[in-house]
Amino acid sequence: MQIRHRLMLSAFGRAMELAMRVGVLGTGTVGRAIAARLAELGHEVAVGTRDVASIMARTEPDARGNPPFSEWAEARPDVRVASFADAAAAGELIVNATSGAGSLRSLAAAGEDNLAGKVLLDVANPLDFSAGVPPTLLVKDTDSLGEQIQRAFPQARVVKALNTMNALVMVHPDRVPGDHSVFLSGDDPDAKQMVTDLLRGFGWSADNIVDLGGIRSARGVEMYLPLWLSLRQAVGTGDFNIHVVRA
Amino acid sequence: MQIRHRLMLSAFGRAMELAMRVGVLGTGTVGRAIAARLAELGHEVAVGTRDVASIMARTEPDARGNPPFSEWAEARPDVRVASFADAAAAGELIVNATSGAGSLRSLAAAGEDNLAGKVLLDVANPLDFSAGVPPTLLVKDTDSLGEQIQRAFPQARVVKALNTMNALVMVHPDRVPGDHSVFLSGDDPDAKQMVTDLLRGFGWSADNIVDLGGIRSARGVEMYLPLWLSLRQAVGTGDFNIHVVRA
Repeated sequence: MQIRHRLMLSAFGRAMELAMRVGVLGTGTVGRAIAARLAELGHEVAVGTRDVASIMARTEPDARGNPPFSEWAEARPDVRVASFADAAAAGELIVNATSGAGSLRSLAAAGEDNLAGKVLLDVANPLDFSAGVPPTLLVKDTDSLGEQIQRAFPQARVVKALNTMNALVMVHPDRVPGDHSVFLSGDDPDAKQMVTDLLRGFGWSADNIVDLGGIRSARGVEMYLPLWLSLRQAVGTGDFNIHVVRA
Repeated sequence: MQIRHRLMLSAFGRAMELAMRVGVLGTGTVGRAIAARLAELGHEVAVGTRDVASIMARTEPDARGNPPFSEWAEARPDVRVASFADAAAAGELIVNATSGAGSLRSLAAAGEDNLAGKVLLDVANPLDFSAGVPPTLLVKDTDSLGEQIQRAFPQARVVKALNTMNALVMVHPDRVPGDHSVFLSGDDPDAKQMVTDLLRGFGWSADNIVDLGGIRSARGVEMYLPLWLSLRQAVGTGDFNIHVVRA
């Protein structure tokens, strides 16, 4: 296995995660939240973007109304800003936090060789805003973005996770009280274990990490988005999630 | 309003629901569970089917492996078996528990006039089993079965609910411990209130009934089905549900 999964057991038997090199692709809300949290947890983070010079030169809010990325990046000297390819090359684990509509293109720019053998955590949703809001899905039902990515990069070990909630809840699950669930879809058990450890680091308890099976199950978590959007309106806050309650 | 919503307040201020006439369309697992529970709660129930003589003559399990409907019906003399049209005519409230693929046809057989002005609780899912299991969806993303039904029967007051869980959990929410959620979608607030009262009768607490908004939000609860199917496999029981947890 190309990825060394660096876990040490302390004298008390608790899993202690050591610093990992992570390439986070995408500079939007989700990429920023994940990169900041990983850096805060001591990981070595490179945020990948299509054109570093261009994004760092921009001083206006982005298309979604986020403050300019350059401002965000300057406040976080512990996060390196790099091209998609550089960030992917540097990472032992790669996070796809690009917009779903452009994910395959962004990952192609990251480079097949830079993804080969690595765990690729896909948090993107294939949202289609071309007809306005609420968005529809670019792929669904008989396929999913997660599967498209796995097919396009067969040597990457794709794990779909975290796409079913707000960016802040992803990395700070304690923003929502009590138990609530995060889902894993992927064909590689070791890759899912690595993502599980990452999620544990974010604060997810083992009981709330639900393994849905192979990457095909990405269809379900991506098709959950329309319900999430309705719930977002109904509850009036992004700080919510669903919990799988069983008998 | 053509439907009298018969609620009485007892001396102790508790809402007491009086018997209601309900037409339950569909003789599968869901129709049986809802009809039996409504009858148990004292409602006057007619179960509607395409061809009464034909279904009562069958002595083999149905396509999904359920015991023959005739056997079920004979054990429940408090439930009347009727044609779609008779059941719809008799009901003050109609439940669409037919298979999603045939719902529009079944409702047409029930008769537009027999649905006009009435609350139509749609619990069906537009599942397509034509390519085997897991099923895909016949309608999704830019439309939903709930919306199709509302468009086809504009005088019916359609409320989508209960389609996000196992039939037994629908009518006995206490099969799953603690809090978990049921969703309402529909354009008519009075109709949603009537369904809310029905759900309260099944045992759903007010806090766990989540109003998602108009019938368009049926897209989300129908597109949740693939996730439900993955969760069904992951948790190993149908006795589960999701709970919306908010900050």
